[in-house]
Amino acid sequence: MKHLPFILVFSLLLFLSVIQASSAQSYKWRLAMSWPEGTPMLHNAAARFAGNVEKMSGGRMQIIVDAPGRHKAPLGIFDMVRSGAYEMGHTASYYYKGKDPATTFFTTTPFGMNPTEMNAWYYYGGGLELLNKVYARHNIVAFPAGNTHIQMGGWFRKEINSLEDLKGLKMRIPGHAGEVVGKAGMKPVSIPPGELYTSLERGTIDAVEWVGPANDVKMGFQKIAPYYYTGWHEPGAELHVFINKKEFDALPEDLKAIITIAAKEVSFDMLSESFYRNVIAWKKMREKSDIKIRSFPKDVLDAFRKANKELLIQAAGKSLLAKEVIQSQQIFLNKAKHWSQITDADYLQLR
Amino acid sequence: MKHLPFILVFSLLLFLSVIQASSAQSYKWRLAMSWPEGTPMLHNAAARFAGNVEKMSGGRMQIIVDAPGRHKAPLGIFDMVRSGAYEMGHTASYYYKGKDPATTFFTTTPFGMNPTEMNAWYYYGGGLELLNKVYARHNIVAFPAGNTHIQMGGWFRKEINSLEDLKGLKMRIPGHAGEVVGKAGMKPVSIPPGELYTSLERGTIDAVEWVGPANDVKMGFQKIAPYYYTGWHEPGAELHVFINKKEFDALPEDLKAIITIAAKEVSFDMLSESFYRNVIAWKKMREKSDIKIRSFPKDVLDAFRKANKELLIQAAGKSLLAKEVIQSQQIFLNKAKHWSQITDADYLQLR
Repeated sequence: MKHLPFILVFSLLLFLSVIQASSAQSYKWRLAMSWPEGTPMLHNAAARFAGNVEKMSGGRMQIIVDAPGRHKAPLGIFDMVRSGAYEMGHTASYYYKGKDPATTFFTTTPFGMNPTEMNAWYYYGGGLELLNKVYARHNIVAFPAGNTHIQMGGWFRKEINSLEDLKGLKMRIPGHAGEVVGKAGMKPVSIPPGELYTSLERGTIDAVEWVGPANDVKMGFQKIAPYYYTGWHEPGAELHVFINKKEFDALPEDLKAIITIAAKEVSFDMLSESFYRNVIAWKKMREKSDIKIRSFPKDVLDAFRKANKELLIQAAGKSLLAKEVIQSQQIFLNKAKHWSQITDADYLQLR
Repeated sequence: MKHLPFILVFSLLLFLSVIQASSAQSYKWRLAMSWPEGTPMLHNAAARFAGNVEKMSGGRMQIIVDAPGRHKAPLGIFDMVRSGAYEMGHTASYYYKGKDPATTFFTTTPFGMNPTEMNAWYYYGGGLELLNKVYARHNIVAFPAGNTHIQMGGWFRKEINSLEDLKGLKMRIPGHAGEVVGKAGMKPVSIPPGELYTSLERGTIDAVEWVGPANDVKMGFQKIAPYYYTGWHEPGAELHVFINKKEFDALPEDLKAIITIAAKEVSFDMLSESFYRNVIAWKKMREKSDIKIRSFPKDVLDAFRKANKELLIQAAGKSLLAKEVIQSQQIFLNKAKHWSQITDADYLQLR
């Protein structure tokens, strides 16, 4: 029995190695994003999230980011994550209105919260809990994960002096905002990105809403549609990370914390990156082109506001959860408005 | 030699265990914060940072947060972290002007950047690199780690209708902003927090600048100084995490990433928490007290602006690095101003 100590220590070490190896199990996950490879800010946000998870986990979790060129379903992230075809996605909640009407307003609402208000609502005003109340029904865990900052109202070929000038104008503007302008008399149209410039140049369309100077500058809209209207319809669109709920729930606690905080970091970071890149691109654009900044006249804004209100009431009527989301946002915004006015608005005016 | 296989496997396992144990070395660090225990937002931010590092590291790094009640040096965090007496601190860079004049404007600058602009400058405009160029000379690694949102201009017992009304008024307002109002004819004074209410009530002082409704509501200023002026002097004060550079550099890469991202998360989170809590406190305050919101008249703002400009030139003259910081901020702000105007300001006006 002279080997007994050897065998005992050996067994103990073997046991410890197995324990450590299992606690350090590694994961190779795939993330499907809605954006084509190289899209400023948007692709960066997905790549940054994946990179931070890998660094913080010491390589225990690796996330491969796939663009639509590979997965072929830019607006199908919801289904691919729900089914587990992809463990993760990076997309925007409002693309999935058809799957669940309650998902629409987690991205943005016309005349709604700006990014500061939106973040306060998400992290302290119950927004994150509501988001996951909605998504849990679809086997998805969702996090806010990137904000575009306030988007401008679009490039117009002609100046808009009254609601009358808008009637019948064809504009590329998608989603809920498209429905709003439609109700106000415009014709919202859908055109592939590659054909936008030519359509605008030839007058097939009269106006186009895209993202912001950093993304728009390459498109060249400013050369042919010099009236640039200030924003009302997407006051800070928030993107989201989706995770298959079953997969997420099975992760060890430290990886859950790492993913949660990496998503929040990227939500914050993309807002800063969007603001920074838009500032730089905007300066360049203005130096090279004679861009005319305009705000929509009062009767146009009133018509948009009215149409938006009606559509929100309609949306709230279709689903109890959608109603809960819309009301939660409105209640917080009504409280926040005055504070935003005497701080953010007042400061930018007096500075 | 029949034990040879045993001995070889034993040695290998021993080696692997040692390797794994060392990669999983744990750390128990201490963080000294400037704020008394229980201070809304500020204490929360330090505790949240520590908690997130612990969760993300699976307990490998534990951070004990000490309040001034224990370390006795609320404004001495710089020295304690530099020397290694504490591995970490949570404080505001502008408290350490006496140590290095270049540290002042990393927190905020009167008439300077708002939180969105500040974050764009920190993370994309070279601010973070400058911060660490300054702090590396003091053996400190620094991160932005919490923002108060735009601060109001203070509670006044009487209405201010012109620069003349300000002359000789005694106001509790610290630091650089105190110097600005001093140059404009006021008398900035320093009074311990516990004596502020009585001093204001008895007329020993005429005005007080504190933090924001969430912190001010308990102080009760609104009952005796009902004129609440909008902000100009701290458009989003940023706090900082300090880390002893030698200790930080010796950490494994995953813990460095975890600390870096936990600091960024808390910078973002405190902005949301500050905004949220101020919204709620502000609503309560207004319901209970007759608060009169005022903006300073033009001649007062002009005098503040002029005094601020002179003090910035003076500060830039004292240190090449201070000059670099001031110029970097001004160059970015000059680019950003127009974009902020046609997005953030315009949106809050038309909404």
